Amino acid sequence: MKIDSTASGVYSIAPTPFLEDGAIDWTSVDRMTDFYFEAGCNGFTILGVLGEAPKLDAEEALALAARVIKRANGKPIIVGVSAPGFAAMRSLSRKVMDTGAAGVMIAPGGGLKTDDTIAAYFRNAVEAVGSDIPWVLQDYPHSTGVTMSNNLVRRVVIENPSLVILKHEDWPGLDKITTLRGWEKDGSMRKISILIGNNGLFFDFELDRGVDGANTGYAFPDMLVEAFKLSKEGKRDAAHDLFDAHLPLLRYDHQPGVGLAVRKYVLKRRGILSTAAMRKPAPAFTPETRAEVDYLLGRLAKHDPRAKV
Amino acid sequence: MKIDSTASGVYSIAPTPFLEDGAIDWTSVDRMTDFYFEAGCNGFTILGVLGEAPKLDAEEALALAARVIKRANGKPIIVGVSAPGFAAMRSLSRKVMDTGAAGVMIAPGGGLKTDDTIAAYFRNAVEAVGSDIPWVLQDYPHSTGVTMSNNLVRRVVIENPSLVILKHEDWPGLDKITTLRGWEKDGSMRKISILIGNNGLFFDFELDRGVDGANTGYAFPDMLVEAFKLSKEGKRDAAHDLFDAHLPLLRYDHQPGVGLAVRKYVLKRRGILSTAAMRKPAPAFTPETRAEVDYLLGRLAKHDPRAKV
Amino acid sequence: MKIDSTASGVYSIAPTPFLEDGAIDWTSVDRMTDFYFEAGCNGFTILGVLGEAPKLDAEEALALAARVIKRANGKPIIVGVSAPGFAAMRSLSRKVMDTGAAGVMIAPGGGLKTDDTIAAYFRNAVEAVGSDIPWVLQDYPHSTGVTMSNNLVRRVVIENPSLVILKHEDWPGLDKITTLRGWEKDGSMRKISILIGNNGLFFDFELDRGVDGANTGYAFPDMLVEAFKLSKEGKRDAAHDLFDAHLPLLRYDHQPGVGLAVRKYVLKRRGILSTAAMRKPAPAFTPETRAEVDYLLGRLAKHDPRAKV
Amino acid sequence: MKIDSTASGVYSIAPTPFLEDGAIDWTSVDRMTDFYFEAGCNGFTILGVLGEAPKLDAEEALALAARVIKRANGKPIIVGVSAPGFAAMRSLSRKVMDTGAAGVMIAPGGGLKTDDTIAAYFRNAVEAVGSDIPWVLQDYPHSTGVTMSNNLVRRVVIENPSLVILKHEDWPGLDKITTLRGWEKDGSMRKISILIGNNGLFFDFELDRGVDGANTGYAFPDMLVEAFKLSKEGKRDAAHDLFDAHLPLLRYDHQPGVGLAVRKYVLKRRGILSTAAMRKPAPAFTPETRAEVDYLLGRLAKHDPRAKV
Repeated sequence: MKIDSTASGVYSIAPTPFLEDGAIDWTSVDRMTDFYFEAGCNGFTILGVLGEAPKLDAEEALALAARVIKRANGKPIIVGVSAPGFAAMRSLSRKVMDTGAAGVMIAPGGGLKTDDTIAAYFRNAVEAVGSDIPWVLQDYPHSTGVTMSNNLVRRVVIENPSLVILKHEDWPGLDKITTLRGWEKDGSMRKISILIGNNGLFFDFELDRGVDGANTGYAFPDMLVEAFKLSKEGKRDAAHDLFDAHLPLLRYDHQPGVGLAVRKYVLKRRGILSTAAMRKPAPAFTPETRAEVDYLLGRLAKHDPRAKV
Repeated sequence: MKIDSTASGVYSIAPTPFLEDGAIDWTSVDRMTDFYFEAGCNGFTILGVLGEAPKLDAEEALALAARVIKRANGKPIIVGVSAPGFAAMRSLSRKVMDTGAAGVMIAPGGGLKTDDTIAAYFRNAVEAVGSDIPWVLQDYPHSTGVTMSNNLVRRVVIENPSLVILKHEDWPGLDKITTLRGWEKDGSMRKISILIGNNGLFFDFELDRGVDGANTGYAFPDMLVEAFKLSKEGKRDAAHDLFDAHLPLLRYDHQPGVGLAVRKYVLKRRGILSTAAMRKPAPAFTPETRAEVDYLLGRLAKHDPRAKV
Repeated sequence: MKIDSTASGVYSIAPTPFLEDGAIDWTSVDRMTDFYFEAGCNGFTILGVLGEAPKLDAEEALALAARVIKRANGKPIIVGVSAPGFAAMRSLSRKVMDTGAAGVMIAPGGGLKTDDTIAAYFRNAVEAVGSDIPWVLQDYPHSTGVTMSNNLVRRVVIENPSLVILKHEDWPGLDKITTLRGWEKDGSMRKISILIGNNGLFFDFELDRGVDGANTGYAFPDMLVEAFKLSKEGKRDAAHDLFDAHLPLLRYDHQPGVGLAVRKYVLKRRGILSTAAMRKPAPAFTPETRAEVDYLLGRLAKHDPRAKV
Repeated sequence: MKIDSTASGVYSIAPTPFLEDGAIDWTSVDRMTDFYFEAGCNGFTILGVLGEAPKLDAEEALALAARVIKRANGKPIIVGVSAPGFAAMRSLSRKVMDTGAAGVMIAPGGGLKTDDTIAAYFRNAVEAVGSDIPWVLQDYPHSTGVTMSNNLVRRVVIENPSLVILKHEDWPGLDKITTLRGWEKDGSMRKISILIGNNGLFFDFELDRGVDGANTGYAFPDMLVEAFKLSKEGKRDAAHDLFDAHLPLLRYDHQPGVGLAVRKYVLKRRGILSTAAMRKPAPAFTPETRAEVDYLLGRLAKHDPRAKV
């Protein structure tokens, strides 16, 4: 089952579980896969930033994809294939699609400048991986250094029919959503799925602005699922109440680098991962940080029993 | 009264009030000055990013500084003097200090690379403005594009005795605070004042890590003052409770560009500014944004009566 | 006399002459002004990068402009007005135009991203300085960090009728010239003047591609004038022969930072400037560098008697 | 035979020859390998920027390395292994060293900031590939966006004993050479080999400053070899005469992107490559560019018979 432009709900971003010695922790890989679906996610993405993809070699990346896809048993798994060259991007894309992936995620290459150059990059990427593969455009300027205007996003959507999901993580980004949704309504851009990222820091209002869901790795995807449902049911205040209870932790988690360590630690405390280990080079996870996360979980548990871990 | 390394508490960052036609709104300038001190601030900073400094010409900048300094009546006013050249930086610094400013704030110039180049920049800046002027080092990589390691901050502190305050707004930045405070304790760096910025997004834990206060422009400086006091009194949970109540709005406000418009709008709703006008070119402040800020204020008012506006 | 889109020939970029103590060297200012016109230049630009503009305060900048404009006695002087804010840009522009400047030069502000943002910047700049002031667009990505595609240059030309000259210093840039000249011919862009910069490193082939002249600060503007004439007369080989004789020095001069020191030193050796002094902070001008420039001048003198200095 | 810190002379940077259909042109690979050694090179580097490395998948990269290493028959082949992640860097490094490579070349990863972060990057890279593999540090800020001060280069040399060659392509860079050579002499840095890059644009004076040779891809490596010999024999003027004759073409070739197309075209005209084809996405190689290169070759041929092609 491939992703398409009707995707909605929560698609988590998954970490890659490791044992303390740096080997892939296959037991946790399976448990994590089950967890995301039990939490109500409609699918998830592997080999993104959170997945420590650059620390896996080509064989490991393929093995991880194969394991997860098999365990997902037909539910959609998206694979991050961003790479410095189109040869590696093509190679990984074709292989994971053959293994049963639902689509791939592509971010613009570092250092791209001018609208024309960025648009050409995506045309070339699609030519490289093949126009038959549905893909997610990752619009994340903070990480990639590439900023795309509203007009440029529309242009890339128009030029590439196989683009089906926008992973929207521009910042500020609320008005961008409103503009894109307006263009869909007036017919100047075809309808795509807009799933938000940027760690979900504005998910509450992004829901109000009409996004189709989330594609981010906060360690309580079940909260994201519930907030999404509340919003769809028109229970705006309840959705904000739930989100606000999580905001102190979610905001803490929203720190480049150390945020990955925090997420793995929370997933370990929730019993999903056996260890919080990251492969080297890893950001420092100091005793102060650990104590602060414990404190945040304790405070969150007063509002949300899922945090009693 | 000049700033020194014992500065503590809250020093707000002030906007520049404008009338709808773009002229400086002197009535609001006075009211705003009074407000910050009534809110419990120990001083505030003008002509920073929030102050729309690049939209004022040299005469206006000096007139604003003179008006605020006079109104502050001896309480410390810090003036942002970052400029592309040392001649303009020197000129503005000498003039505002002659007018009674308490010190100046300097950010590293754009495009600086390598520790040696950045350190040289600050030595040259101090030589330009004069080593008799106490100054605030603004460490804000997201805005300046210049990243300073812990070691480099220490080096700049050591090389420049007139540096008395670090406006800490690196991100992630919690462990940086712990490292710098450790160096002060073990004697490898002299004691300075560390005031936090980055819109206060981590002020709760930054207090836990031992900072001396805040130097940021959130439109409820009275909340920052109260949280600071609670923290100093050892009431950690109460400080977090207060902060968490404000976090949804504070987080919303933490958007580059539009965040300035939001802050001015909230200050207008609080009765401090007569208008929320920004000088051109200004970010869009859409009806959707306005409605969201109103919604946030309504929700906040349930926890904090100061938001009933 | 104002600049317009028929500008052709050589417009030098002028340094700001200083005495050893850092004061402006007014005698050299006059001599330099005379020199450029005696060398065959049709005008020149002050307060550009080569002019150490950020090291002059506002009063000095105006005084320099007034002195040069008066001495030029009606011949066109262009003034660099790039600034971090539109208020300073407007202020300087209006004042120098009142003093008799022929036009201003504007580079895009640092950090601009996306075509739409860059185009908006120039519209705002024109609104700030006034649409009655003819201006030079400085397209110099290496210095500004802002890259403009061919399409974006055309868009800015179309949106701003007061833009009359493109200072073309993109790199690589030869095909950009051909594309823009083609658009002028097919009517999809109005005719402007294209003068080249980037230290003239490709002036030989840029002439072949059809540019209107040069707007750069090589210390032998008389060579640029002669090469331009040879090219216009159809003497392609002779133009290249002359250019190639200068290329070793011109290439040496094409070093960021130290290149300014080299140019001032050559102008001193040519008897134009009394000193080669730069204001602090200045790049190092080591004995090795000085000896290498002397060596280059000696070698050049075998081909061009102007280098016998 | 592995590279070590006594490396001197010319080590070319090799392109990857392709057929018109994009397949690797093995016949040209062999001919090119022979050519570099016949031209007097002591070795060469594959899979650098010029080698279009990102357009080769992992299998192709290994196959190319194996073919070249076998053909070189014991002469040193260096392999570029820069990658976004250490897993890929390690994997490629171990495999090519097993195949007989003489060492690897590593550039700092994109986006690195602060001296401490850059130094940590290289320590991690060495740990990843293994401290037994001798390596070339590529110091090329224009391409990588990472600037290393003189002090930082020294630090990386000291911290990593397996670093044996500095590919020096900082710009400006002449004084950096003098500083580093001075540190070697006064014992504050161990002796390494300094080979220059940056397309050789300053090779003449870099020789005068005492470098050990070149590691760049100009299409006349035989000229670089001859200039190096003349310099070593103390024939400074002759070395400059030879270099200056090539400078117009060498300068032309020094254009990002299109420069690669130019080099392949010149190598084709010299009979080394069967085609000038680049893999997609390739920079435009316009008829104007081609005609200019032909013109430059014609002019060069008057001074150097090697250009009669």
